Amino acid sequence: MHMTIRVAVAGASGYAGGETLRLLADHPEVEVGALTAHSNAGTLLGEHHPHLRSLAARELVPTTPENLAGHDVVVLALPHGASGAIAAQLPDDVLVIDLGADHRLASADDWQAYYRSEHAGTWPYGMPELLLAPGARTAPTEDTPLTKQRENLTGARRIAVPGCNVTAVTLGLQPGIASGLLDPADLVAVLAVGYSGAGKSLKPHLLAAEGLGSAQPYAVGGSHRHIPEIAQNLRAAGAHDVSISFTPVLVPMSRGILATATARLAPGHAGTTTRALREAWDEAYVGEPFVELLPEGQWPTTAMTLGANTALVQVAFDERAGRVVMVTAIDNLVKGTAGAAVQSMNIALGLPQTLGLTVQGVAP
Amino acid sequence: MHMTIRVAVAGASGYAGGETLRLLADHPEVEVGALTAHSNAGTLLGEHHPHLRSLAARELVPTTPENLAGHDVVVLALPHGASGAIAAQLPDDVLVIDLGADHRLASADDWQAYYRSEHAGTWPYGMPELLLAPGARTAPTEDTPLTKQRENLTGARRIAVPGCNVTAVTLGLQPGIASGLLDPADLVAVLAVGYSGAGKSLKPHLLAAEGLGSAQPYAVGGSHRHIPEIAQNLRAAGAHDVSISFTPVLVPMSRGILATATARLAPGHAGTTTRALREAWDEAYVGEPFVELLPEGQWPTTAMTLGANTALVQVAFDERAGRVVMVTAIDNLVKGTAGAAVQSMNIALGLPQTLGLTVQGVAP
Amino acid sequence: MHMTIRVAVAGASGYAGGETLRLLADHPEVEVGALTAHSNAGTLLGEHHPHLRSLAARELVPTTPENLAGHDVVVLALPHGASGAIAAQLPDDVLVIDLGADHRLASADDWQAYYRSEHAGTWPYGMPELLLAPGARTAPTEDTPLTKQRENLTGARRIAVPGCNVTAVTLGLQPGIASGLLDPADLVAVLAVGYSGAGKSLKPHLLAAEGLGSAQPYAVGGSHRHIPEIAQNLRAAGAHDVSISFTPVLVPMSRGILATATARLAPGHAGTTTRALREAWDEAYVGEPFVELLPEGQWPTTAMTLGANTALVQVAFDERAGRVVMVTAIDNLVKGTAGAAVQSMNIALGLPQTLGLTVQGVAP
Amino acid sequence: MHMTIRVAVAGASGYAGGETLRLLADHPEVEVGALTAHSNAGTLLGEHHPHLRSLAARELVPTTPENLAGHDVVVLALPHGASGAIAAQLPDDVLVIDLGADHRLASADDWQAYYRSEHAGTWPYGMPELLLAPGARTAPTEDTPLTKQRENLTGARRIAVPGCNVTAVTLGLQPGIASGLLDPADLVAVLAVGYSGAGKSLKPHLLAAEGLGSAQPYAVGGSHRHIPEIAQNLRAAGAHDVSISFTPVLVPMSRGILATATARLAPGHAGTTTRALREAWDEAYVGEPFVELLPEGQWPTTAMTLGANTALVQVAFDERAGRVVMVTAIDNLVKGTAGAAVQSMNIALGLPQTLGLTVQGVAP
Repeated sequence: MHMTIRVAVAGASGYAGGETLRLLADHPEVEVGALTAHSNAGTLLGEHHPHLRSLAARELVPTTPENLAGHDVVVLALPHGASGAIAAQLPDDVLVIDLGADHRLASADDWQAYYRSEHAGTWPYGMPELLLAPGARTAPTEDTPLTKQRENLTGARRIAVPGCNVTAVTLGLQPGIASGLLDPADLVAVLAVGYSGAGKSLKPHLLAAEGLGSAQPYAVGGSHRHIPEIAQNLRAAGAHDVSISFTPVLVPMSRGILATATARLAPGHAGTTTRALREAWDEAYVGEPFVELLPEGQWPTTAMTLGANTALVQVAFDERAGRVVMVTAIDNLVKGTAGAAVQSMNIALGLPQTLGLTVQGVAP
Repeated sequence: MHMTIRVAVAGASGYAGGETLRLLADHPEVEVGALTAHSNAGTLLGEHHPHLRSLAARELVPTTPENLAGHDVVVLALPHGASGAIAAQLPDDVLVIDLGADHRLASADDWQAYYRSEHAGTWPYGMPELLLAPGARTAPTEDTPLTKQRENLTGARRIAVPGCNVTAVTLGLQPGIASGLLDPADLVAVLAVGYSGAGKSLKPHLLAAEGLGSAQPYAVGGSHRHIPEIAQNLRAAGAHDVSISFTPVLVPMSRGILATATARLAPGHAGTTTRALREAWDEAYVGEPFVELLPEGQWPTTAMTLGANTALVQVAFDERAGRVVMVTAIDNLVKGTAGAAVQSMNIALGLPQTLGLTVQGVAP
Repeated sequence: MHMTIRVAVAGASGYAGGETLRLLADHPEVEVGALTAHSNAGTLLGEHHPHLRSLAARELVPTTPENLAGHDVVVLALPHGASGAIAAQLPDDVLVIDLGADHRLASADDWQAYYRSEHAGTWPYGMPELLLAPGARTAPTEDTPLTKQRENLTGARRIAVPGCNVTAVTLGLQPGIASGLLDPADLVAVLAVGYSGAGKSLKPHLLAAEGLGSAQPYAVGGSHRHIPEIAQNLRAAGAHDVSISFTPVLVPMSRGILATATARLAPGHAGTTTRALREAWDEAYVGEPFVELLPEGQWPTTAMTLGANTALVQVAFDERAGRVVMVTAIDNLVKGTAGAAVQSMNIALGLPQTLGLTVQGVAP
Repeated sequence: MHMTIRVAVAGASGYAGGETLRLLADHPEVEVGALTAHSNAGTLLGEHHPHLRSLAARELVPTTPENLAGHDVVVLALPHGASGAIAAQLPDDVLVIDLGADHRLASADDWQAYYRSEHAGTWPYGMPELLLAPGARTAPTEDTPLTKQRENLTGARRIAVPGCNVTAVTLGLQPGIASGLLDPADLVAVLAVGYSGAGKSLKPHLLAAEGLGSAQPYAVGGSHRHIPEIAQNLRAAGAHDVSISFTPVLVPMSRGILATATARLAPGHAGTTTRALREAWDEAYVGEPFVELLPEGQWPTTAMTLGANTALVQVAFDERAGRVVMVTAIDNLVKGTAGAAVQSMNIALGLPQTLGLTVQGVAP
């Protein structure tokens, strides 16, 4: 017997909205309801997302509470700062999933510092695999199993989907933080990021002519808005003081994030080995359908995750450098955005979390 | 109630084999059986296709009749010329699907001329949407509906999957040929082709350093092996003498074919318009789940079809040039290879033809 | 002893202006003078073209006759339709080179039909290698050598630089037209084009996220503005009635045009061979520093021409198809735009035409 | 009056050899002499580097002392480990420039550890801008100017050209090391690298189908051979103990390195600012023709350096992270290899160091 979930998507003409619709269109329990837009209201979805053939003839309507009414789930794929107002007008018993940043940060100060607008409040965080302390500071055992954010999503009616870069960096680092193996006080992350991560905004440096054949860093020097969110996650996993140098680099691919993170060992772990380290990542992700530690020696590439909801991780200890290096690959639009939303929706509604999601990447 | 179909893939380490496994791994009625290889026997699938997470730990066994025995379906993803011998040793009641060229051409002379080896014979052709004359020479009507190759695939136990470029060019041209609107005697096709279309062969011009930032033509001047197969298809659709100038150009993308075909109008159709032409394409593809004529004025791009089994077509009449131009986009590894195989398998086994296939492209 | 030529560039912040400056900055006889812009006036060149290190600190001034005064050469890199007005205000003895389309077309009707604005008149055409009839209809001999557009550029003070696609198609086809080997009445050209060819305009389909991994046709069906210019060139080379089906396809590279053109043999040449055809192309381009017929069997790629002023051509006869296929590769911003401007400037001013230009491509 | 320098290139069919020839072909004082190869001897250069039009017809001869005799300069573009033997057979008064790693490392132990073969000895290091201690530990002043490696190259007859990644990382970090502002004991570098950096080797992960649309890390965890060379350079600049975490990531471009390096401030510099830091980089590179600190706030991209001999650097202090971030962009084949060779050759022979080299990148 099927239940059918009616889902509306607000902001359907952007990349995040489009990717959400790509997944929902093939989700066995979902019926796609209203598709809303702001300036694009009145146009057809196929003018913006011609790759979504089964929905191409659907018309976009204005983003209003009226148009979003009568759905079981409303996905907000709106510009940062825009979802607070509309969410406030939606019934409490409707599952509202925010792909924007508005409801991610617990600290109003962090919000002010990085987004310079009024803090909309905090919603349950849509990263089921996020590790939660206590028990996090010591290596987990059968007696004190790891707890994860998943349990906070069951039955939730408001969900804040993580930032894409945040997901890649958090999933790479957190097992080492939660197990106390890594020192969170001097982290470094450099990310190769595909252009869809920058959204559909018409800026010169996002033109194909500029991006093709080039690597372009941006938000260098600590200004990127994903930094406080990473720190918040690692604190949740058990870190006290988190400091991270974070540099994203746009590279010529439409999708994908390859995050290279490095950290020093925490005091007292000097004599460790790569094999020993792997146990913590293994334990953190064993049984997870979408986060996987690759076999020793195999490193993730973004192509492995294209179109899939997988996050692939590898870790090694560089003894000469005295640093642990962790590499994580995700598809920024799937596990980094829309896939995390669908996985969290499944959990919130009591469905199998894997429904409508795949682990097979589209490669080569 | 579920039936489970056991499918073996011979040549699992190549691109065609890998893509077939990507689709089969998520096919609701399929259980993936033996994975075989030649020089890669004994290695794990994950060493060759790390993007296929659910099958990564599977070991490749040698390509022998013994290893392929006990399956309902055997997919042959072998080098051209290799499938004839192995197919001859498989039981008649097993569905054998050949992704290679060996069983596509009806003419032994064509085979000799282009492949220079012994002709393995001809199998039912795995292009369900291929139009079949008679009735083809006149515009189809309710009384004389179009017949298609689909009906020849029902219950088939041997299927030859079309070449990827052949599929793009045939689906673009055939409605105009079958309806008698186009003159098949002077066709021109130029294709932008992604690198996976060249297979996993280690040749200098296929290196990333050579391909990135460049457009490279190949097999120019009439030597490409897909030419006789296109002509065979258009003759099946009703053409008498077919002659086609065919030029593929490798462009910097991993997947996708964008085929631009042009043709002169057949005698007696001088006064036509784009709108009038569209009726023939509309009629040919109405109700087809995977082949679609786009709305007037919208042209296909390969990104619209990435990872999907769709072929998107557009047609226009250039009055000044006196030529009709048709553009078709497909994913060379899906509708061009593995998706056509799965769609044909579904038809042959009496399943819904869309099972395990999507129409949503992975874009941007 | 050096002469120093002072050159101003109007429209310096766009791609055509930037590429002109890249070449002029290293030109041994040139001193770069005023750099002008419209909305970008008051900014530094380095904000728009940070790759031009020796000019990065130069300020852009408004595009006015006053700012352009006092130069030996003024290059206009302005939007189509804008150069007529400013050119009218420049002295007759200043060499004015228009990179825009305004002064290319001899026919006011063609201008109206494709550009829908007032015709600014016609200037000497900046394609030195353009073949000129008469003598063109018969195979050239020692007694009746080929004449070329070069001689019309010596001493010229107004030059209209050809369109980039026009250059690629004209140089590929014209030897066959001038020698009477090809029938100009049914030509087909399909071009793989890099994104810089679309200019620096902020349109969604030009975003990197859209272009990467995709092939996108545009201006399909006979609407492209370069069509009448190609026809004009081929008529100059000796064709009577020219008709050409022209389809450009954007592919994921920042620069480069690979033009595949096909034509039927003219009556009376049925028995020809590729070798025989090559003689006409050989004769047309022997001694040309920047246009080269590649050795038989080697086909051009755009990477061979990146950053160079070369046009590389290959030709073959496809007997089965009954068509001759010609492939031409150029860098759209060099031989297709700025390089043609510098070469023409050299000729107009009596300098060696190769000054400041290279034949070595930047590859891989 | 011109002097003409006869230059031979051994290993002309590879990428490093080809790029050297691209620069030498347009060098005003150079005559290209013998071109040698191993397995490709007897073929034409145009079969391997068709982009080098002026040399395409030149034949490759075997790499022997006889064929390399009678030249003023011999450039060795051979596989690592191969140049020692051939160099030993060349006269002392011939300038021999090794593009391979054989003569870079002063420590035989480092060579053994990373290259596992016999150490060929150490040659003057071809990085003119390398800073040399003493005086390096204190901020430089008029009285104690910075000394650089340039002076060790004047009149040299043996030169070891640096590794491409080494050049990017060294030029970014060394001003901070030499001035004592940065702590060399915990450096982190992550590099986005184009595929030509991997050379012309036929490996599956270097195929275009694999590289397009993907980011692939390699030699992760401290195994990359460039690590000891970076440490050697930073020690030369004044560091005592150097330790660096180094991760290269292949991204879909044919050329270019974007190196993101981070370091902690040295003790006693806690209160610093980005502006204060910039002074050290400014002082290190003021007057350098090919290494430039970009204006504050502008970050390098690889496209800015394509085909040019420039290294573009930017630095900023991330106060929250407590780390300084430095980004450097180069063209791996120019400033990273062949351009460094030509610049060093110019210096060794007493020519202006900029001869035959440009600072203008080929962009977009």
